[in-house]
Amino acid sequence: MTYCIGLRLDKGLIFMSDTRTNAGVDNVSSFRKMHTWEVPGERLITMLSAGNLATTQAVISLLEEQSKRADARSPMILETESMFQTAKLVGDTIKSVIRNASQGGPESETTFGATFILGGQIGGGQTRLYLIYPEGNFIEATDDNPFFQIGEHKYGKPILVRAYDGHMSFEKAIKLLLVSFDSTVKSNLSVGLPLDMQIYEKDTLRRGFEMRFQANDSYYAKISDGWSEALRASFDALPDFPMPQRNINR
Amino acid sequence: MTYCIGLRLDKGLIFMSDTRTNAGVDNVSSFRKMHTWEVPGERLITMLSAGNLATTQAVISLLEEQSKRADARSPMILETESMFQTAKLVGDTIKSVIRNASQGGPESETTFGATFILGGQIGGGQTRLYLIYPEGNFIEATDDNPFFQIGEHKYGKPILVRAYDGHMSFEKAIKLLLVSFDSTVKSNLSVGLPLDMQIYEKDTLRRGFEMRFQANDSYYAKISDGWSEALRASFDALPDFPMPQRNINR
Repeated sequence: MTYCIGLRLDKGLIFMSDTRTNAGVDNVSSFRKMHTWEVPGERLITMLSAGNLATTQAVISLLEEQSKRADARSPMILETESMFQTAKLVGDTIKSVIRNASQGGPESETTFGATFILGGQIGGGQTRLYLIYPEGNFIEATDDNPFFQIGEHKYGKPILVRAYDGHMSFEKAIKLLLVSFDSTVKSNLSVGLPLDMQIYEKDTLRRGFEMRFQANDSYYAKISDGWSEALRASFDALPDFPMPQRNINR
Repeated sequence: MTYCIGLRLDKGLIFMSDTRTNAGVDNVSSFRKMHTWEVPGERLITMLSAGNLATTQAVISLLEEQSKRADARSPMILETESMFQTAKLVGDTIKSVIRNASQGGPESETTFGATFILGGQIGGGQTRLYLIYPEGNFIEATDDNPFFQIGEHKYGKPILVRAYDGHMSFEKAIKLLLVSFDSTVKSNLSVGLPLDMQIYEKDTLRRGFEMRFQANDSYYAKISDGWSEALRASFDALPDFPMPQRNINR
């Protein structure tokens, strides 16, 4: 599986994705699931992917027109006029890739589905964040629903729900994403480090700070250990259940 | 959906289940998912169920032989000689109920699957805890894997993984289960209060303390609010990410 988050903040966007892919637990590899297209001063588009790896890679390749000769390429994703149009382009591409994979050929037991988070800004427009479904349609992040998760999203949701705040700094948002990822990594083998992280600052129209958190990253270790300890301490500090004495013998 | 936990402790077993069932979000009801059979001094068997409600109710009814006249009933589940045999009886019953539902009749889009947690003790034997699959086979809780969750299990797993300790008291274990349920209820509409809770003290061969936590329960409120607050405080106390200054403009 996979775990990716796209978060909308007042200051811009922040993306994080793991890198583990697997076809069964005995066939585990590491792949980048974060893809960025940038024309400094004109557009920044970042996409996170979850689902069938052949599908997600085909979608990325088609968006980059890798079927053409290198010098004849003029990637469509660099020519869209708005983020909405970009989301529609990505949605249409997903739909056609899945349709091609499903027709003809031998029946497959696995599905060809893939889901994408798409965020960024194109000169003149607003900063946008979309969730694009395998069916090709999509929804946009709003104030009521300011973040998207794809893949193994359940383990890491409780802390996002509780600690997210649109006004938070990027520094704090990175901490939040790492805590959410750490809860997931600790509970589910199919999500693993390293983690890719990228920031987009509103209206800069270029890629912001980005880095890869390796398993031995000292800040990640500090957050992971600190959070485990804090959870245990918080848990201990809550009052135990006051058991009615007549009901239990010791 | 549903969320149920069965936890094995040194002192015995503890069970908790929610009560929400739904067929789509506009058809929500409340049903008890915890069933207990007791012959004081001889056996205590408790079962938690998740999945298709028709299947789980049919399984319970068959185990109680409700198809017979009331005075002719001699429930098989009260006659098994060991917990292992009980698990096998439940597994066989599930399998046959699902087989009956799937054959003949109109095709259904929903599946008839159901999963059970079974725990208890039968005189002379050990206290046991099993997870029984829709296929009718089952696994037993071990020291390495001392608890089972069924239904919407992902949201509430991180805290179980971090705070579980086999030596913990029942008072503390109830707190742990409530925190795990609270994380789930806050993240997923399909799991809801009231929550049923039951304790089984090893070697007592009778039902221990049990209660239903209503939405307005004062201890539940204390845990829920206290945990939210503690999480936020713990999160704030962790160091924010030290952003390299050259990489970001403010």
